[in-house]
Order: sequence, then C-alpha cells, then structure tokens
Amino acid sequence: MTSLDAQLRMTQTKVKAMIDRIISIEGTPEVLYKASRHIIEAGGKRLRPFIAFKACELVGGREATALPVAAAVELLHTFTLIHDDVMDRAKTRRGVPAVHVLWKEPMAITAGDLVFAKVFDAVLDYTARKWISPEQILRTLSIITQATITVCEGQAKDISNEKRREVTEEDYFETVHWKTASLYKAAAETGAVIGGGTKTQIELLGQFAYNAGVAFQIRDDELGLIGDEAVLKKPVGDDLRQGKQTILVIYALKHANPKQRRKILETLGNRKAKVTQIKEAANLIYSLGAGEYANKKAMEFIIKAKEKLAPFPDSPAKRALLDLADFFVTRKH
Amino acid sequence: MTSLDAQLRMTQTKVKAMIDRIISIEGTPEVLYKASRHIIEAGGKRLRPFIAFKACELVGGREATALPVAAAVELLHTFTLIHDDVMDRAKTRRGVPAVHVLWKEPMAITAGDLVFAKVFDAVLDYTARKWISPEQILRTLSIITQATITVCEGQAKDISNEKRREVTEEDYFETVHWKTASLYKAAAETGAVIGGGTKTQIELLGQFAYNAGVAFQIRDDELGLIGDEAVLKKPVGDDLRQGKQTILVIYALKHANPKQRRKILETLGNRKAKVTQIKEAANLIYSLGAGEYANKKAMEFIIKAKEKLAPFPDSPAKRALLDLADFFVTRKH
Repeated sequence: MTSLDAQLRMTQTKVKAMIDRIISIEGTPEVLYKASRHIIEAGGKRLRPFIAFKACELVGGREATALPVAAAVELLHTFTLIHDDVMDRAKTRRGVPAVHVLWKEPMAITAGDLVFAKVFDAVLDYTARKWISPEQILRTLSIITQATITVCEGQAKDISNEKRREVTEEDYFETVHWKTASLYKAAAETGAVIGGGTKTQIELLGQFAYNAGVAFQIRDDELGLIGDEAVLKKPVGDDLRQGKQTILVIYALKHANPKQRRKILETLGNRKAKVTQIKEAANLIYSLGAGEYANKKAMEFIIKAKEKLAPFPDSPAKRALLDLADFFVTRKH
Repeated sequence: MTSLDAQLRMTQTKVKAMIDRIISIEGTPEVLYKASRHIIEAGGKRLRPFIAFKACELVGGREATALPVAAAVELLHTFTLIHDDVMDRAKTRRGVPAVHVLWKEPMAITAGDLVFAKVFDAVLDYTARKWISPEQILRTLSIITQATITVCEGQAKDISNEKRREVTEEDYFETVHWKTASLYKAAAETGAVIGGGTKTQIELLGQFAYNAGVAFQIRDDELGLIGDEAVLKKPVGDDLRQGKQTILVIYALKHANPKQRRKILETLGNRKAKVTQIKEAANLIYSLGAGEYANKKAMEFIIKAKEKLAPFPDSPAKRALLDLADFFVTRKH
C-alpha cells in the first residue's frame, strides 16, 4: 500500500497540472496571474483536494473524475488565504511574502477575486464531460457557494472577535465551524457528488471531513503556538500577536491566576510584542495545560470523524482517509 | 406605453425584493449583512437588471423568470464596487460613505466576497424552478464566471495603468471592455439564456449591451469630469484626483500645448489637489474639445448597439432597450 505521504505527493502533482490549466502562467495581465499563483506555488499540502479525490473514489468514482473539483476546493482555500492575509496584514505565508506584500493590496484583493472566480471556472469544466450530469455539477456548485458564504460569515465573526477581549470556547468552535471545517466538509461532499455517491454517502463523508477539519484546526492552533518555525515556514506566535483567541489561549486564560492572565493579555493582539515576550507567553499558556487540553479535544473530533467512515467497507480510499485523519492530529507541520 | 423612468422604477422594486431574499436583513453576523447591503440600499439605477429583464422578454421569456439573474448581475456589479472602493480608497459611493469607510477594510473585503458568493446563490435559485433546464443554469453560471474573470483582469490592468503617466485611447477601450462593457454583455446574455433565446439572439443581445455599455462608460467619464455633483451624488473630479486616464483626459493630453499638458498632469493622480485646481483642469480638458469628442464616440457606440436589435421585430421590450440606449448617452446622472 502506498504511504499517505506518497499519495499526498501524487495529489500535489495532479492538482498542479489542473491549476496550471485553470490559472494559466500565460494569463494576462501577467502580473495578476503571477499574483494569483504565488501562494499556490509556494507550497501547501493539498489536503482538501486529497479529501475530494478519496471521497470520490470511496463512493465508486474514478479518482481522475474528481480532478476539477479537487482543484476547485484548493482554489477556494487559496482565495480565502490571499484575502485573509490582506485583512490580517500578515507578512508571510508558506514561507514567502504574502501576495499584498509583493504586489500591494489592490492587486492582492483582485488576485483573490480572480482565484474565487476560477473556483467556479474549474467546476464548470465538467460541462464538457458527458458522464457527469448537469445535476451533479449544479449540486457541486451549490455546495461550494454555501461553503463560501459560510466562510465569509466566519471571517466577519472573526474580525469582530479580534476586537473583543474575551472569547469563549463556544465562540472558538463557532469560528472553526465557519472558517475551516465547512471547507473540509465541502471538499468531501463535492468529491462524493462527482463520484456519484448516494445522499447518505455524501453526508457521511461530509461529516467525516467536518470533524477531521475541526481536529486539523485545533492542531494548527497548537502548532502556531509551539511548533517548529523552520518546519512550519511561518513565525510562531503570530496568532498571539494578531490577537487570535485559539482554544489554547481560551483554556489558559480560564485557568490562569491574575498575574498569569495579565502576562498573556499583554501579548494578545499586541503587534509590537517582542519575540521573547511572545515566547514567554506561549510557554506560560502551555504550562497551564492548554496543549494537553487541545490534544484531547483534537482526538475527540478525530474519533468522531473516523466513526463516520465505519459504514463503508474496507478499501484503499477508506484507509487513505483514516490515515489522513491520524496525520491531522500528529503532524508537525 | 410606460416611460423608461417608470419601467426602471418597477425594476428597482422587483430587484429589491429578490436581493432582500438573497442577502437577508436577518443574515448573521448582522454587521456583515449590513455592510453587504449598504451600497445597494444607497441607490443605483439597476440598469444591468433592467437589461437582463428586457433581454429575457425580447426572446419570449416571461419577465419574472429573469428575476434571479437580474439580481445576480446587480450583485456582481455591487461586489466590484465594494472592492473597487477599498482599492481606490474612495471615500463615498452613491452619496454615502463607502463600505470600508464605515466598517474598515477587512469587513469591506469580506462583504465584497459575500456579495460575490451571493451572485452564484441567486443563479442557483433556478434549480428549484422546473421550467428552467440545468443546461440553462450552467450556461448562465458560465457567462457570469467568464465576465467576472474579465472584470478581474480589467481591474488588474487598471491598477497598472494608474501607475503609468500616459495611456493611449486603445488602452482606454481595453479597460472599458474589461471593466464595464463585459458586465453589460453578461446581463443581456444571461437574461436571454434564461428567456430561452437562440444562440443568435443571445449573441445579438450581448453585442447590443456590450456596445451600449461602452457608451455608458464614456458618458460616465464625461459626467465624472463636468457633471452636477448634487445630481451625481459623487465628488466631481475624483477621477482626475485618482489619476484615471479617461477618454477625455487622453484626448486633452494629446491636443494640449506643453503648458496645458503640465496643468493637467499636475492634477492627475494628485490626491492633494485642491478643488479649484481640479475645476480648472476639468475646464481646460473640456475647452480642448474632449467633451465633444467623447460625445461623438459615445454616439458611435450607441448606433452600433441599436443596429444589433434591428433583426428583432418591434415589441415593448425592444422599445425599452432602444430607449435605454438613448438614455445612456443623454443622462445627467
């Protein structure tokens, strides 16, 4: 059996070919297409396309059939990253300067818009394939549209949260739902729709990816606090600096004494905080048991995710998704 | 026969009802939905929806059938306005503060993204209507996607043009093609597709709207230079301040003596230019014959537009579109 790592690399190659066609290097104006491809070319694990591929396979579709939708979910993710970086004034993404840093804000906003339009362009590619019905294409477009609406609502919620001082764990999970999990869900659902899955299959796969997506985000927040910068290709502690109230911060604030609280709140959203100050706060948050708590929560969601796949008979696609779920909570990057 | 004015008002009422459903006042988070509705509520003539309605009618469809697509083209226009204002750092739109002025940039970017997603949401509304085929819906979505890609490319071109000192008339028409005319074209084409038009009918209506759209933009640039602020609800001369090389500026620069050139170039893109300086430059541009030239060009495009409707037999819808074309070049606002 091919390892998850090898399978992810294959996904990367296939998705690259499709994205190269959808957002061509030869597109004009050149600067727009360069800006639009920038963070796609900088890396990324293509986890969402992988889920789309495997969901398609698991319901009996050919893996290749999922290619346009796999590219579409990656582009949807990319569009949110480009605009997020503008909104957060983030300096880097995937170890390279953010789009707006290289080409200024107007071009970055436009590049995000273009990539968003290309999401639909990718899905509409199916109209040329006679073995995919118009109803399947419309269902796919509808899932993507609803996911995007959900992402925008999440983004707006996030913008409001950053201004508030104290966010509850409930708020956190609401944001994760909006911002991350719904996109993973859409990746699995659209893959399953294109693969010709039944209503129940589409739903189960959607719930698998939804719960796995929550676990993924918890792990992401953990790595953002204590991960290895060199592996992650992003400055650790940036979430603190940006005032992001992750599950770890929320847990720590709840269990801190007044002095510890003050120390954490001093760095939270403080864009001028020094690296040493950030590191101290991160260690404090961790020492309060936030890391363990986050791990426990992530595991809960992964178990729930895997349960959703129980009704499916064993197959390479099923095993790949189960491996992916494990990877989500054990990954170092 | 109902006057164009009365017909436009009816369109406004109908489109409002549909948009109220698509971008509900009750959507959450409230701030996002408020921001997304802001400039729609501030006014706008709903010219694109009107074209979609009439194109649908002209090919034999019921006007009501065009409602989702009429709302969609208005939302597509709205999305571009919200993001444009962020990119141009424009302070007002339709006589009210721009979205980013009231809710800051991140919320404005997100509101634009939401409105964009709602464009597709509006069109996907047709999936519930059995008398519209999936193929018609997919064709509509494809037209809208391609128009958006074109708009993004235009926007990127525009951003680059603003940096250059001298832009040719050819560049100008390229930008108008990308930025304005293609959206008008999409409005007519999607209306005709939903109305069940033939390939030729869809094409002719698209070309009608395309050429009318070019004339509309030329008139817009003229009004932006010499129009009545109170009627226009926008600061006259802002295009100059923003460095927009309209057909009038291009013509004037070509026919100016060195001293006059200097005077125009001093205000062009000079955000600190005083009102009197802007007014002087505008008068100078006009006195060089740029207004007459713009009028002549606009008329040429309107004649071309009207010719495209010649193959259609006389009908109220046809007369409405011909009236609209005349309005495009005679309007004061």
